[in-house]
Amino acid sequence: IVSVLSSAIIVYRLPWTWKCSKLLMKFIHAGLNTTAMILAIVSMVAVFEYHNAMNIPNMYSLHSWIGLIAVILYSLQLFLGFVVFLLPFAPIRLRAALMPIHVYSGLLIFATVIAAALMGITEKLIFALGSAGYSSFSPEGIFVNCLGLLIVIFGALILWMASRPHWKRPPEENAKVQRPNGGAPEGIEAESTMTDCSNADKSDVGFNSEAARKRNLKLDEAGQRSTM
Amino acid sequence: IVSVLSSAIIVYRLPWTWKCSKLLMKFIHAGLNTTAMILAIVSMVAVFEYHNAMNIPNMYSLHSWIGLIAVILYSLQLFLGFVVFLLPFAPIRLRAALMPIHVYSGLLIFATVIAAALMGITEKLIFALGSAGYSSFSPEGIFVNCLGLLIVIFGALILWMASRPHWKRPPEENAKVQRPNGGAPEGIEAESTMTDCSNADKSDVGFNSEAARKRNLKLDEAGQRSTM
Repeated sequence: IVSVLSSAIIVYRLPWTWKCSKLLMKFIHAGLNTTAMILAIVSMVAVFEYHNAMNIPNMYSLHSWIGLIAVILYSLQLFLGFVVFLLPFAPIRLRAALMPIHVYSGLLIFATVIAAALMGITEKLIFALGSAGYSSFSPEGIFVNCLGLLIVIFGALILWMASRPHWKRPPEENAKVQRPNGGAPEGIEAESTMTDCSNADKSDVGFNSEAARKRNLKLDEAGQRSTM
Repeated sequence: IVSVLSSAIIVYRLPWTWKCSKLLMKFIHAGLNTTAMILAIVSMVAVFEYHNAMNIPNMYSLHSWIGLIAVILYSLQLFLGFVVFLLPFAPIRLRAALMPIHVYSGLLIFATVIAAALMGITEKLIFALGSAGYSSFSPEGIFVNCLGLLIVIFGALILWMASRPHWKRPPEENAKVQRPNGGAPEGIEAESTMTDCSNADKSDVGFNSEAARKRNLKLDEAGQRSTM
């Protein structure tokens, strides 16, 4: 679930997707998130059925509370994202207003899922190994601790990628302007777009054209972020 | 620790601090972080001494691993922040380059501390109540679960405040330009600065002056974020 969620988060940051149409990119984002949602539901059903079969009470631990809240918020996020950003009915103004909230809550849910996973690991290790077994540095405990650490490092990398402004997909119109000789080979083009874009932000080309470019960039950005 | 850390994070977002000099604001930020560091060290010493007194092994759980890593990263963050941003020796270029990393790692450490706290709560509840006691919905378990939830909600609010671009401290020069009649009462001024600043970003005043203003804003911002 964490890895599918991560792919859904960083799909807008991957140079190879910048050549897709925006609609296709949105479909990839929505499809990956739907996959993660299905996996989350399957795993929740499995947990409840396991608990019922073993006569273990449900929903007593902090892990289960935070996990369930994350899944409920995630389904809300998916539903709102679908209605507002994928269906063509929402006005641009609404999309622009909701986009920062959509981005923030997506990242927050991602971090919360990681926290819930870490609590789940802690719980499971104590239940499986017993307090004495866990505290005797058994190989299983150390192995699963390392797994937990790797999840944290992985999450930190994804959040880094998702929060770098210069790793954003370059604006479409700007990208066209950046390529006067449109015949560059695909590979090179994909690799260089990111650099071009960040350089463009620092370029210095007189007040008037600079202002016009910035204005276009801003409008284009708003359009990209808020329309189909 | 979480609340002191939070105060240190959002000090740059609070309208009443916008009237302080930047140096004073930095001292508040550094002072609060130093306080949190001292509290963290005291609590770590307490944990180790308690474990030793009770003959409980140290550093076997995922909670302890992630907690210790967070404290080590935090002390590094504090040291680097002191050397680069508080002492007057680091060149502007270095400060500007390190600022995004400083901000990201500060927020990451904050989130990691919350995750470690949640794991600690889970561990402590299972050890104190026993698996059977915890799963029988004892009042203590439910109370501490609610505490965990409140920590998550609190952390989410702080991360929201820290990541809103229009809640940033307005640039100093710009703030002066925004107040042609400088005699406004203190309270109103402090409250209105945030709105002024966000409106200023959307204002539409011809290409030339717009460009000049944006350029000034950018330089001023770089100056603010990278110099004393």
